[in-house]
This record gives sequence, structure tokens and C-alpha cells, in this order.
Amino acid sequence: MKAFTLTMRSMLERAEMLFPNKEIVSRTAAQIFRYTYTDFAKRTRRLSSSLQALGVQRGDRVATFAWNDHRHLEAYFGIPCMGAVLHTVNIRLPDDHIAFILNHAEDRFLLFDETLLPIIERIQHKLTTIEGFILMTDKETLPPSSLEPLYSYEQLITDGNPSFEYPIDLDENSPAGMCYTSATTGNPKGVIYTHRGIYLHSLCIGLADTLGLSERDAVMPIVPMFHVNAWGLPFAAVWFGSKQVLPGPAPTPELLLNLIAEEQVTIAAGVPTVWTAALKVMEQKPFDLSKVRALVCGGSAAPRSIIEAFEYKYGIPFYHAYGLTETSPLVTVAKVKSYQEDLPKDELLDLRSTQGLLVPGLEMKIVGQNGEVAWDGQEMGELLLRGPWIADEYYKDERTNDFFQDGWFNTGDIAVINSEGYLKLVDRSKDLVKSGGEWISSVDLENHLMAHPAIFEACVVGIPHEKWAERPLAFVVLKDPVNHPVSKDEIVHFLSQNFAKWWIPDDVVFLTEIPKTSVGKFLKRQLREQYQEHYSPVAE
Amino acid sequence: MKAFTLTMRSMLERAEMLFPNKEIVSRTAAQIFRYTYTDFAKRTRRLSSSLQALGVQRGDRVATFAWNDHRHLEAYFGIPCMGAVLHTVNIRLPDDHIAFILNHAEDRFLLFDETLLPIIERIQHKLTTIEGFILMTDKETLPPSSLEPLYSYEQLITDGNPSFEYPIDLDENSPAGMCYTSATTGNPKGVIYTHRGIYLHSLCIGLADTLGLSERDAVMPIVPMFHVNAWGLPFAAVWFGSKQVLPGPAPTPELLLNLIAEEQVTIAAGVPTVWTAALKVMEQKPFDLSKVRALVCGGSAAPRSIIEAFEYKYGIPFYHAYGLTETSPLVTVAKVKSYQEDLPKDELLDLRSTQGLLVPGLEMKIVGQNGEVAWDGQEMGELLLRGPWIADEYYKDERTNDFFQDGWFNTGDIAVINSEGYLKLVDRSKDLVKSGGEWISSVDLENHLMAHPAIFEACVVGIPHEKWAERPLAFVVLKDPVNHPVSKDEIVHFLSQNFAKWWIPDDVVFLTEIPKTSVGKFLKRQLREQYQEHYSPVAE
Repeated sequence: MKAFTLTMRSMLERAEMLFPNKEIVSRTAAQIFRYTYTDFAKRTRRLSSSLQALGVQRGDRVATFAWNDHRHLEAYFGIPCMGAVLHTVNIRLPDDHIAFILNHAEDRFLLFDETLLPIIERIQHKLTTIEGFILMTDKETLPPSSLEPLYSYEQLITDGNPSFEYPIDLDENSPAGMCYTSATTGNPKGVIYTHRGIYLHSLCIGLADTLGLSERDAVMPIVPMFHVNAWGLPFAAVWFGSKQVLPGPAPTPELLLNLIAEEQVTIAAGVPTVWTAALKVMEQKPFDLSKVRALVCGGSAAPRSIIEAFEYKYGIPFYHAYGLTETSPLVTVAKVKSYQEDLPKDELLDLRSTQGLLVPGLEMKIVGQNGEVAWDGQEMGELLLRGPWIADEYYKDERTNDFFQDGWFNTGDIAVINSEGYLKLVDRSKDLVKSGGEWISSVDLENHLMAHPAIFEACVVGIPHEKWAERPLAFVVLKDPVNHPVSKDEIVHFLSQNFAKWWIPDDVVFLTEIPKTSVGKFLKRQLREQYQEHYSPVAE
Repeated sequence: MKAFTLTMRSMLERAEMLFPNKEIVSRTAAQIFRYTYTDFAKRTRRLSSSLQALGVQRGDRVATFAWNDHRHLEAYFGIPCMGAVLHTVNIRLPDDHIAFILNHAEDRFLLFDETLLPIIERIQHKLTTIEGFILMTDKETLPPSSLEPLYSYEQLITDGNPSFEYPIDLDENSPAGMCYTSATTGNPKGVIYTHRGIYLHSLCIGLADTLGLSERDAVMPIVPMFHVNAWGLPFAAVWFGSKQVLPGPAPTPELLLNLIAEEQVTIAAGVPTVWTAALKVMEQKPFDLSKVRALVCGGSAAPRSIIEAFEYKYGIPFYHAYGLTETSPLVTVAKVKSYQEDLPKDELLDLRSTQGLLVPGLEMKIVGQNGEVAWDGQEMGELLLRGPWIADEYYKDERTNDFFQDGWFNTGDIAVINSEGYLKLVDRSKDLVKSGGEWISSVDLENHLMAHPAIFEACVVGIPHEKWAERPLAFVVLKDPVNHPVSKDEIVHFLSQNFAKWWIPDDVVFLTEIPKTSVGKFLKRQLREQYQEHYSPVAE
């Protein structure tokens, strides 16, 4: 059983042979485009043959800078199946970071969406390794551009060979993809995904006990394909022959909900802010979401209030999941066990608000100051992971030593695990508030605040404090400040019913919006910097 | 992502940590025994530590000779997790083959059920490598026996260390298990299962698109644990934390149906003869099978009539699957695709009577005399397979060269594949009837015969014929020959409505029972030998 290697070629070919007529629906800048897996596979092979003609060889990095559409999906397979490395670049990063990433990865070619042309033109003078730009557009002629040489993606497809054969001798440990993740300080860090890692992660998300992705599904990754491979959904969906619905450039919540309804989407995945925004639209207008069997939420902790709204108000199964760029990403899914189904609603919501149960294939432990801590739901520690789809280094980066030790990846998340194995994140280690030597979980406070009927979003950070070293400060966005105002005192009172006195933030700041990272997470660093003097004597 | 190896330790430890309270129900010779995964894991560790104390080292073969119960399950993990090789021996083989297998594998220890003691005593003088016999029994004292040295399994458990730690540095390509498969001629052939193969096969049977094995299931392998690892179900069931129901020694159809009802089994798996016998009992007496979500049938082709009876008469989902000892075994499952669900019943049954769709992870092709043939549902060829859980050799056996070439395993099955990818076995290459240079499928004829309301079982073999080289001969067992007799002419007429004239067997032989192999397949070789003169001029 040694000879056969785990590579993406096998995944693509199964779709091609077994599901020739299954459909891929793609929203581009211009249209809703539809085709079959047969056509998808032919275009994917054409792309690979044209890249080879351009000189792309095994191990070469080829970057994509694009939204979720069918061309990006072709690149998802066409680049790695030929032995090159699919480097997905986050389109929402600052220019400097984008240029850094392309240079650090030594990308040779860059495939990008027409709508993103201005960004690439803006940074082109900083790019040191790109030998050609490939524009993905529906239009027949290329726009005038300062990029040189500039190729038309569709022309490359036309010129390519639809019967291009993929190598069968690729090493399963060779890189298939890469993605950079933002760091607390310094430049983004690169993570390599191997063929083996993608193959195993894809199997994992097809398990009945995780996401159960299947031929029967119509899969819509709302999470961008430039963000941890859209959580691996496109890879698995091709392998299993699922219908795919790719929502294209800058989709609005209403557009997404319409697509879900019209294309009979059965499973969609996105970050909490996507689902919060969707709920807002759903409150104003009905959508037929009757085919949805699972909404998946990850990227940052889902407030219990979102889970409750989808599950109990709308009757839509809503799964909280957890993972990181370094973990491919799936680590846990918050499904209840068969014998827990009859628990009272409150306890069920408690379980489903945790990060959930470790998926088959991975191993975890939590480590405190004195070593590994018990799974008792009480003791906190840093969460360490290992497994076949967990990274073991940052690409050419000295910070590798800080996060990868003895085969374990230190997530930087503080967690507890209970005796049934449910993982609960308490905080990012850097976001914990340390007040008078005791830890306060900003996440717990935020989740409770967001359960308040008048509060849209809430964020809590630790601010330097003369006496307690740090004290929590709450930031609150109200749903309707004019008609449903809420005072600081009311908020403090609301929290007091559930938390010890010393956990209660000393102040509440009302904002119209909470600053967010490029992937929709709260930008706590910015709030912390901006309000660092908030509790200093002068400010008081 | 290179460092982490795919071994069974990780599978066991997930069950231990995440599903401490899930249940294993085991029927032994004496009782119905129940315990939790916590207790299972402790006893498994105790077993390993005692085997180590007896001198078992990495790579050593340790044999089991046992029915499906909790001790066998402990051996399933205790032996491979410590780095030794679990060698399951088929208890139904002739003495000579059992001795050959134990000697050829160079097994050092033999774990066996008390009910099987007489067989082991009978062959002990032939065993050349066994250093110790370990008796698995509920009784507190060992029976008098000629075996020497004879150990008590329960004493080894008592003496063992429940915290025994499994190595984390096992090579994933190292052998974890082995199983011998009968050959057409000569001694049985040994197949090695690696840790990696078992790990990946287990992931595969958890996929929503295959068997979807899950924590929610109560799994009952009726297929014996001495036969291709009970199709891998026990490995996957532990990993996913499923309840397990192990039916113990020589279960009758009625006992199995009662267990399914009482233990609320959701998925059970067995060969066609098991399900034929079950249907017979179900016709006489009702059983509550309402929790069953899947009956899985493999080992040999399931007659369409069985599928129809379970699906349409009893409303129980019934899945035809295909695999071999060399393939771990899962290769295909006959599920219909989402867009085929509304096909007419006859077409659905046609699809579900095929061997089905290739599972993710494997690759197949069919090869005729002039190379690979098209997937058009017409052209026949030998079925070749490759993938990470397909064997690449027979253990120390020259016949390896006949079956394994260029990374492909030749199954010896003749098949067609249609344009949707459905695999349909036409025959074993050795069982095809070659009449006047044309191929006749014995399987097609058998399936049609078994759909006749008065026929219990039917078997067709090719018999030498002066003019046509070979002609088919049918063997038929009637359900009730006294009250519902059927004549040869009626049978010939029944077949004539569906098959070309030259396919119709020249004669029909009525039997009270069709001889079967140790795993319940028709023993065509025996019929062929016994009736080899049937069409010779003298016999006519």
C-alpha cells in the first residue's frame, strides 16, 4: 500500500469521471456563469498546459488575487495538479503587505480579477519576481494597462490543451498551496499546504461527523478563496462532485441570501460578521432557505446570539467551527453528541457555542504555566495542535521557532476543554485582559453583550491601568441608537447579572462601527492603541 | 505538514478522550457484556503491555482466531498500536490452510476463542512458530488442554498496565494487520494492511457519500472480524466514537435481528447469504428495525431481489457495496446520485444493483484484450484498481507478479462501467462462461433466477461442452419444493423472457443447498468439478 501517493490529481479526476454533468455556478463581474464538471476539468487542463508553455515548472509559485468564481476554482486545481504552488493572496491587505507577500513567496505569475487591476497597477513597481500578469475577465479585449507582460486568462484557456495530462509521480509532501496570515507585529507569515494535507483535510470535511460534505450538497463558500482556501470547501466539493455556487466579487448579504435561495444551496460557510449582516437582512425580508442543511461559521468566535437566532428563530442548522490559517483550517466543529440531543435548550446552546469537538485526524492539548492541564472545563491553557493538516513551519520565517515545537503548533489561543472533549476558546492569548493578576475573558464579555437585544456588535479589550495593570474597556455598536438607545449604566447592569464585579468593564464606548481586519475579525490592536490612555489618570 | 504520521494510536486516543462514555456491547459465549470506551481503552492498553511482557516486539505477527466480540476488538487496537501486526485468521478454513497461514505469517502468539479450542488443539502439532496460546474466555480457570504454554487472556489483562503508552514514532507504512484470502488454486495468499491504509480507509467509510459512519451510529458488523477486518468497521467505529454491537459466536439470523432491534442498531453489514437468511426469518416474525439507517451488503454480488425486498417491502435502506481482501475492502458503494432520485423504481433498482460508484481516494480502469476500454456500459474488461488502501503485493508470495503490475491491482473481476461511472461486475474472470467464443455472465443469470418468487438460491457455472467449449449449467434451490414446485421448463421459460437464447443454461439441476466457501460465497469450483462431465456425450 506504499506506492500510491495522496495528490490532488486523483481528486480532480474523480469529479471528471464520475460527475461529468454536475454543475458549477459562478457569479463574475458581468454575469452568472454556469458549466459542468466536464467543462471545468477541460478548462483546468487547458490552464495548466498554458502555464507550462509560459515556463511554469514544478515547485514554482503562481499567485491568485481574486474573488470566488469559476476561474479561481480552475486555478485551485490547475496550478497544484501540474506540480506548481497555488498562492492565494488576500485582496484586502494593505498594499505594502500584498507586495511583501508576492515577493517573499517569489511568485512567478499572478492571476487576478479585473476589478482588482488598480491595486496591482499601484504596487507593480514593488514586485521583484513576477514575470507575467494574467487578467481574469469576461471581456474579449484586454483593457489598457501599465502591467507588462499582461496576458488574457481566456486567451490562455483557448490556447491550452484540454487533454493535458497531470503527473502521477508528484511527492505527496510537495507544496500544493500557500497562504499568508497576518501577524500581531511584523510582516504576514506564510503557510504551506501540501498535497497530502489538502487530500486529508478534504476527506475530513466529508465525514458525517464534521461537515458531511457530499455529492448531494450545493456548496457556497462565502469565506473568500483568498482566505485559507475558502476553508478547503472547493477542494472537497470537486472531489465529491458537489454542486458549487461561487458568489463572485464583493457580494452583499442580500445577494448572498438570494443566491442561496435561487441555487438551492445546502451548505454555506462564512465568518460571524457575514451571518450577523445576513440576520439583519432576514429580519426585513423573507428568503426561501428551506434547502439549507448547514450554515458553517468560523474565523472568529460566533456569538451565542447568532447561533440561537438561526437555530431557533429561523430553524436553520448552524454550526460553529474553529480553525486557523495554520490548520488548513478545520480543527473542531460544535456538533452535539447523539446522547446530548435531549438536553435543555440552554445547555444545548452552551455546547454549540463552544468551538466543539476535535475532528478525526487531529490531536490537541492545553498547556498552562505548569505543563499540560486537565480536561475539566475549568483550567485554562494555551491550545496546542498536531496532525496531518497542521503546518509545521512558517515559510522561510524565523518566527517558526516561536510557534512550532516538538511537533506541536501553538495556536496562541487560550482555551479550556471539558470532560466530554468540548473545546472552548477563552481568548487569544494576546487579547486576554489581565486585571490584578487574574485573567478576564474578553470573548465571554463580548458574547454576552452581543446577546443584548439592542446591541449589534461589541468588542472588549484590555487597557493599561495604574492600579490593576489592565482593565477591560467595552466598545458597543447599537442596532438603532435613535429609537432604541441604551445607556452605559444599563449595559453595566446587564453584565453584572452574569459576571463577577471585577470582570465588568470600567467604561463603555459607543461607536458606529468596530474596526475589522481584512477577514472580518475585530481589529483589537487598533482599539487598544487608540484608547491606550483611556484609563490613565489624565484621561480620567 | 510532514511530521505527523497516520497511525492507529491517534484513532484509539480520540475515542478515549472524546467519547469516554459511549458503549460497546459484546455477545460472548456466556453473556451479553457491556462497557464504555474508557474501559475498552484501558483493557486495550493492558493487553499491549502484557504482550510486550511476553516478548512481542514491533513487526511481530500476533494471530487472532475468534468471533466478533469485545476481546477481539481489544486485539484489533492493542496489537497494532504497540507496533505489532494483527493477523486475523479465518476460523472456517480447512485445518491445513489454518496451519499453513499461521506458519507462513510466522505468528508468534495466537489469541483464540474458547469455542475454537478443539481446532487449535487439532492442528497444534503442525504449528512451527507459535510460542504461546492465549485463550479468550469468560471463565476464571483455564480448561485442561494439550496447548503449551497456554495463557489466560483475562489474566494478561489483569496483569497489564492500563496506562501503557503507545509509541508515536511508528512508520505509517509499517504493517498493522494482515489477512489471507483463498486462491483458486494453491495456498491462501497473505495481504498486509498498513497503519496508513487502515487510517485512510477508516476516513473513507465515514464520508457522507459512502457509509457515513458516525458517532450517532450503533454499528453491528455481522461480517466476521476474521474476514477483511470486518470490512474495516471496527476501526472506524472506534475512531468516530460509535456505539458498537458485536454479535459473538455463530449468531443465527434470528439472534442478529433481535440484537439489531434491542440495541437500536443503525448500520449493519454482512454478505448476501446473511441478508437472504434474515429475510426468511422476517417473513415469519416481525422485528423492530426502525432505527436502521443502512444495511450494507458485500462480499459477493447482492441479487436485485434482496435489495428490492429490503428497500420496498420493509422500507430499510440497503446498500450494495464491493471490495476484496486486497482492497481493505471498500471500493464502491451503490448509492444513487442526487439527480437520479426521481428515476422510476426499475431504473433505481438497476443502479442500486450495480456495484456502484468508486469511493473518494481510489482509481479504477477496465482493461480488455486491446487495452483500456470505454466507460459506455457495454464494453467488458478486467477491473484494475489503485489507491492508498489497495494492496501492492501478496506477502512473500510469487503470485504477486500475476496480480500487481505498474501500481495497479488486477481484481480478476470482469466489469463494465457506464458513462455515469457506475461499476457493474459481470463475473469473476474465472467464472465467466465462454460459449462459442462469446462471454456469458453467470452473475446476470443468477440474479435473474433469484428474483423468481419460488427460488431461494441459484448458481450458474460453465461446464465443458464439445461443440461450444463451455455451456452454462444452472443450480437451483427452491424455497418450498413440496408446496411450490417449479419445473426445468418453467425456469428456462422464465429466463428466456430476458436473455438471448444462447445465454440460457442447457440444463437445470435442483439442489437442497448450494455449497459455499468459508465466507459464504458460492463454491463454484466444487460444482464445476462435480459436474464437469454433465454435458459430455456420455452423460447426455
